Amino acid sequence: MHQLITDLYPICRSITGDGVRQTLAYLQRHLPLQIREVPSGTPAFDWTVPQEWNISDAWIKNSRGERVVDFRQSNLHVLNYSTPIRRKLSLTELRPHLFSLPEQPDRIPYRTSYYQANWGFCLPHRQLLELEEGEYEVCIDSTLEPGHLSYGELFLPGAADEEVLISCHICHPSLANDNLSGIAVAAMLAQHLGQQERRYGYRFLFIPGTIGAIVWLSRNQATAQRIKHGLVLTCVGDPSPFTYKKSRRGNATIDRAVACVLGQGGYAHQLEEFTPYGYDERQFCSPGFNLPVGCLMRAVHGRFAEYHTSADNLAFVQPAALTETLKLLTEVCGLLEADQRYVNTNPNCEPQLGKRGLYRPIGGQMDAKGYQMALLWMLNMSDGEHSLLDIAERSGLPWATLAAATTALREVGLLVPREEEHSA
Amino acid sequence: MHQLITDLYPICRSITGDGVRQTLAYLQRHLPLQIREVPSGTPAFDWTVPQEWNISDAWIKNSRGERVVDFRQSNLHVLNYSTPIRRKLSLTELRPHLFSLPEQPDRIPYRTSYYQANWGFCLPHRQLLELEEGEYEVCIDSTLEPGHLSYGELFLPGAADEEVLISCHICHPSLANDNLSGIAVAAMLAQHLGQQERRYGYRFLFIPGTIGAIVWLSRNQATAQRIKHGLVLTCVGDPSPFTYKKSRRGNATIDRAVACVLGQGGYAHQLEEFTPYGYDERQFCSPGFNLPVGCLMRAVHGRFAEYHTSADNLAFVQPAALTETLKLLTEVCGLLEADQRYVNTNPNCEPQLGKRGLYRPIGGQMDAKGYQMALLWMLNMSDGEHSLLDIAERSGLPWATLAAATTALREVGLLVPREEEHSA
Amino acid sequence: MHQLITDLYPICRSITGDGVRQTLAYLQRHLPLQIREVPSGTPAFDWTVPQEWNISDAWIKNSRGERVVDFRQSNLHVLNYSTPIRRKLSLTELRPHLFSLPEQPDRIPYRTSYYQANWGFCLPHRQLLELEEGEYEVCIDSTLEPGHLSYGELFLPGAADEEVLISCHICHPSLANDNLSGIAVAAMLAQHLGQQERRYGYRFLFIPGTIGAIVWLSRNQATAQRIKHGLVLTCVGDPSPFTYKKSRRGNATIDRAVACVLGQGGYAHQLEEFTPYGYDERQFCSPGFNLPVGCLMRAVHGRFAEYHTSADNLAFVQPAALTETLKLLTEVCGLLEADQRYVNTNPNCEPQLGKRGLYRPIGGQMDAKGYQMALLWMLNMSDGEHSLLDIAERSGLPWATLAAATTALREVGLLVPREEEHSA
Repeated sequence: MHQLITDLYPICRSITGDGVRQTLAYLQRHLPLQIREVPSGTPAFDWTVPQEWNISDAWIKNSRGERVVDFRQSNLHVLNYSTPIRRKLSLTELRPHLFSLPEQPDRIPYRTSYYQANWGFCLPHRQLLELEEGEYEVCIDSTLEPGHLSYGELFLPGAADEEVLISCHICHPSLANDNLSGIAVAAMLAQHLGQQERRYGYRFLFIPGTIGAIVWLSRNQATAQRIKHGLVLTCVGDPSPFTYKKSRRGNATIDRAVACVLGQGGYAHQLEEFTPYGYDERQFCSPGFNLPVGCLMRAVHGRFAEYHTSADNLAFVQPAALTETLKLLTEVCGLLEADQRYVNTNPNCEPQLGKRGLYRPIGGQMDAKGYQMALLWMLNMSDGEHSLLDIAERSGLPWATLAAATTALREVGLLVPREEEHSA
Repeated sequence: MHQLITDLYPICRSITGDGVRQTLAYLQRHLPLQIREVPSGTPAFDWTVPQEWNISDAWIKNSRGERVVDFRQSNLHVLNYSTPIRRKLSLTELRPHLFSLPEQPDRIPYRTSYYQANWGFCLPHRQLLELEEGEYEVCIDSTLEPGHLSYGELFLPGAADEEVLISCHICHPSLANDNLSGIAVAAMLAQHLGQQERRYGYRFLFIPGTIGAIVWLSRNQATAQRIKHGLVLTCVGDPSPFTYKKSRRGNATIDRAVACVLGQGGYAHQLEEFTPYGYDERQFCSPGFNLPVGCLMRAVHGRFAEYHTSADNLAFVQPAALTETLKLLTEVCGLLEADQRYVNTNPNCEPQLGKRGLYRPIGGQMDAKGYQMALLWMLNMSDGEHSLLDIAERSGLPWATLAAATTALREVGLLVPREEEHSA
Repeated sequence: MHQLITDLYPICRSITGDGVRQTLAYLQRHLPLQIREVPSGTPAFDWTVPQEWNISDAWIKNSRGERVVDFRQSNLHVLNYSTPIRRKLSLTELRPHLFSLPEQPDRIPYRTSYYQANWGFCLPHRQLLELEEGEYEVCIDSTLEPGHLSYGELFLPGAADEEVLISCHICHPSLANDNLSGIAVAAMLAQHLGQQERRYGYRFLFIPGTIGAIVWLSRNQATAQRIKHGLVLTCVGDPSPFTYKKSRRGNATIDRAVACVLGQGGYAHQLEEFTPYGYDERQFCSPGFNLPVGCLMRAVHGRFAEYHTSADNLAFVQPAALTETLKLLTEVCGLLEADQRYVNTNPNCEPQLGKRGLYRPIGGQMDAKGYQMALLWMLNMSDGEHSLLDIAERSGLPWATLAAATTALREVGLLVPREEEHSA
């Protein structure tokens, strides 16, 4: 995953343009990704697909003709979505177009101006202070023209019509954690799940932030209703503890499943309530959709010093953190797959486990082993009303142990999924 | 407000009689108060309007003819509702008719005997101990005859039929906090609300305790059903922190609104659960009515040393405390007025706030400002199910900020009140 | 109660056989107990009544013919339900049939093998270690033949069809706390309740563990539905604090009633959530029945060192602990009897208590007495929706005080049980 991040890091992405296309093409080499192109001007609810932005070069030259700010050194130097410009102007005229971070004087900030035509440069505050009075020449060799918004979509069908959504944004230029880490982990999770039997279908979206989610939802309103669980992945490659932000519903199965896996797995983490500010969960959780989609993060946007600066670089994301995030996600998907409601076919008193080889023959001593408790819990709670996750929460037993007990009890016919019971 | 308390302090009030009438007449000079007169003997649920009590003088003279207890010095000296008497008797015969506070030997207690014919005097315990053996003459120049129960009612109509009830008791003689403070604050709140646009009607009751509430409810059973929120005001002029006692429902909007304003406004306060002992919330919250009426207090009846003694005097209530109580109540009413459910007219994904001038055009930086969060919260939660108070509680944002955001969003048509949506 | 335990202690009980019969016959001398005999081979849900086990003697003799392990010294020495055997064998051959407790080397463990044919001996680990190499002769003079499963049942009818279940197990040999204590307390409670007027019927079961409960439930499926509250009693004779394990429902009335009595009575105690491991609450709370049956314990099975060892002897149970348990249970039954929903016949405002002699005539002073608060709470909450237990929980008043107030209010016609109200 770190290699993928390293390969994609230099590309200048934005919400539209060739940077996104190169990124999707790279992913397509590893995944059977569908690439969608939506024309500029296409309406999407309250929004319209904007013009496509591309850029080949940009600089500020001083009076001696030296590039004092150079897009070739970092694509963060350009205000993302800057309109083209080439002119000479004084430092005083230039200043309103320069953005820096006084509190972090050595870092280039990342700034955008998608929906108000503007141009500008971002640079370290220390460098800004050193600019001499005099004439400067600025050049932004960009185009902002009718084109397309591009995004990638990958669907792994499951036995049921119901779907799990995994979404990540692909619109940031040279920022590693935000959100090349999300792209990398989503891609690996897709590879992993592609090799498994699946009860759910899994839909992966690689989309530009905000406008991408809005466009996808506007084109997929029926599909959206099949989403039973969803996660937005952002900033998942740094070594911070996990932060899971719950869906708007607050107690959706995905909220409880992530909390269960984080807690039972001993992952350092914190849970946060939904707020309508953040990443694309804002759109998935808008009141017209109210989908059960949470957001998985490690470092939280706006709360770490590297956020939206040139310090969110390849050194900030760590292979071990990426691997741990992937492990967590495969466990969450495992729990979602296992989380069914069962019916105990022998509901009156306990069944005799011993005669089925499921119980120790010598009684009289406390048996605290989790597996045998898991057998009893699954049998006791399986009245068709309690799911495996419900039982994991109530019993405190590891969900995987309950899943193993469930398999054993299904094999001897003591548990059947609720749906089969109903059709019988 | 302190002037009003000072003016009304000397009057000898009781649950009926001219003291109440004088008090109401005084209020009528400042407020368009209706004064109601209900004849003695009128049934009111399980109760009957009692005979009217009036008193002109009362004393105990010692054998030397000196007034050792004198109603003219304090109207607390007479057991309130004492039957008339004039006779000579020994100290031993007198003693069962004397009431004092051994633990507070310098204070005159306040005692009543409304529903059992009796006469008596209240005096400082120190004075009681100093009474010499010998003959005394007692005189209570009172009348207890068919007459009326008097109360005041003021209704400020609102746009809707629904009402907010503000009730205070007016039956206590020279006690300042209990409840001239409640009378004063209610009067000022009525003046204040009279000058505002109102969604709710506001009904102010100035009534004798217990029997007044019972009489009003028995005569206004239909009106009572229009009461959506209510507060009983007592002891609101001393400098103690606020105590809000919840309605019997416990989670009524008024309970949550008072808690929200107290909490967000940084007022020192405590919340208490309902109990069926206290002031007239006992009647409003009786099971047949179960109205959402709580009780706002500063010092709590029975828990402060001055309670029902001559020490609850003009020095015990403070102008700053009265002003703060009035401020709190105007905020509570402001929240009740603002607390509607709205429907986001653009529920699918977020609307584009920038093109409506509601959002900063330069993105990419965390914006923590409450106002912009308030816009997002109102939009996200306004599915017709969540009121502004719900959203204030969930978001933790100040309700007034949410109200301001609501105004802005209504102006651009992004929010409409739920009722208008339904009729559209 | 301690005498009963002392008398029954020497008997070698098991899940079937004459030990159970002797125990039931002893109880029958004090209680009008019905004794049921269910033939071996009778199906009971997933189970079958096993063959009847009886034993007259058992020993291990060393090569010198000395009884080194002797059933006559303690019936715990035999693996309960051992098949008959008489043969000579080496220590190596004998060892798999010997059970001891290395951590408690001086105690004989209690072991059973009901559903897998086996034979064995239990002995102190210290003694096991001292066994010399050489030939041994073992003898278990037991029979395992078609017979009956025996249990006792006692029903005290009540005014209503609804029942309270008290169940205890009678299958353990010489163990005092587990569960002669339960038998003794249940027997005394039955005697006590037999002399009372009863709203509920009370059904006492003296049954072998697991199979007894399963057999009873399989033969009484209709009766089981009449059980509105139930308790399994085990290990209630030692001086530990009480532990109450809630029913599967978790908030059943019995769960709340026991918690209320434990809390208000100042009993040292802890509450535990239901788990599907324990005593016969496992069967009563199986999903097909889901009866509101909890388990009352003092020491908790598997958590005290004496558990299932020879140290659970007559010295371990204490008369004072047994008496306290009985007191607690009579209070719980008292609360269950009192726990009705009432309707206030004067629901609009408070009734005038004074004219009914229920209230102090001199007002004006805080009256904190519980009884008068109990009158107000019962009147305020009795809208037909709140039971006495609900009101005890909400008010914090002692349930017995509320019950006394209820009696007084019923006498003056201010409260009627909800059912009478509905039929009126």
